[in-house]
Amino acid sequence: MSFQPSIIEIQLPDWIDAFIIRHPVYISSIEDRMSFVIEASQLNVSKGTGGPFAAAIFESESGKLVSLGVNLVTSAGLSILHAEVVAFALAQKKVACYDLGGQNLPAHELVASTEPCAMCLGATVWSGVRRVITGACDDDARKIGFDEGPKIKEWKIELEKRGISVICDVRREEAAKVLLNYSLLGGKIYNSREAG
Amino acid sequence: MSFQPSIIEIQLPDWIDAFIIRHPVYISSIEDRMSFVIEASQLNVSKGTGGPFAAAIFESESGKLVSLGVNLVTSAGLSILHAEVVAFALAQKKVACYDLGGQNLPAHELVASTEPCAMCLGATVWSGVRRVITGACDDDARKIGFDEGPKIKEWKIELEKRGISVICDVRREEAAKVLLNYSLLGGKIYNSREAG
Repeated sequence: MSFQPSIIEIQLPDWIDAFIIRHPVYISSIEDRMSFVIEASQLNVSKGTGGPFAAAIFESESGKLVSLGVNLVTSAGLSILHAEVVAFALAQKKVACYDLGGQNLPAHELVASTEPCAMCLGATVWSGVRRVITGACDDDARKIGFDEGPKIKEWKIELEKRGISVICDVRREEAAKVLLNYSLLGGKIYNSREAG
Repeated sequence: MSFQPSIIEIQLPDWIDAFIIRHPVYISSIEDRMSFVIEASQLNVSKGTGGPFAAAIFESESGKLVSLGVNLVTSAGLSILHAEVVAFALAQKKVACYDLGGQNLPAHELVASTEPCAMCLGATVWSGVRRVITGACDDDARKIGFDEGPKIKEWKIELEKRGISVICDVRREEAAKVLLNYSLLGGKIYNSREAG
């Protein structure tokens, strides 16, 4: 008998693939890339498959979609499965490399419906993306009760030091509205250690 | 045809389960818990299955082992698969909850062969553990070339503010030796964006 499983399996919601196929594979403007991601964050709520967050990886120059992740914390029962983490994993599986900034690869970027939390900020650095584009900001997430974790204040400077450029507040109001709606509908705010 | 996989599968090395089964399921002192984890970090190097890092989740009071993770970044091709992340995922699958601090669960702790990087620090908060015990420190990892990421300086205070106690430098020299040996043997230092 084994002590722990030899495979960790993460199942993505069925609707994601159908959603992607309804959209063009190349999206040229960063505003349209963000709209695509915000729509996915809204669908993740209405389909009941997780928190109000989505994130995608694009090839920066061509605008080619590489992967789309959504928050799966409550549905998969794993606290690491923020949308960004799911998007990084899917993209790295696709390019068959743990480094999206690796040699012979086009520059990749993260488009996230909300600013990365402390964990996803670190994950962003390890992912190899060259650019980060965010919609709603920390404050919008904190406003509905999500703890963003022990995140460094100068996070944009820290990313830029590592060669990762940052563009914030792209369609922020639209993205923040998804968070607010989630909260108003009584969506679970799943910070850890609920036992206090 | 699907755009992206509907399942992300993470395969753990075969040797882990056999390694665990050779050890007692309950380990009473934190020093012995750390020795167990350091031995796993060393094995991950000698078996060629990833970076020189391991992490385990224990029930704090009883010392019952819940899960053991090792770094799988290069072997699985996913940058998120630091030892801590693997250990959290395995433990949460086992207790069937994304929150190891959830109601009706005993207090859980993370025992990590090296201080958590920026990503794993955030992941620690979301995991629900109540205590963190570390071996080698940031400096030991940086010394052989690993970037620990944009990590908040006051990370221990930030964890303690959230009800997570921290004990550092447990068997630090022994843990740091594994890092140094990895480097001396020419082990891959897999920071991202190797293309510069």
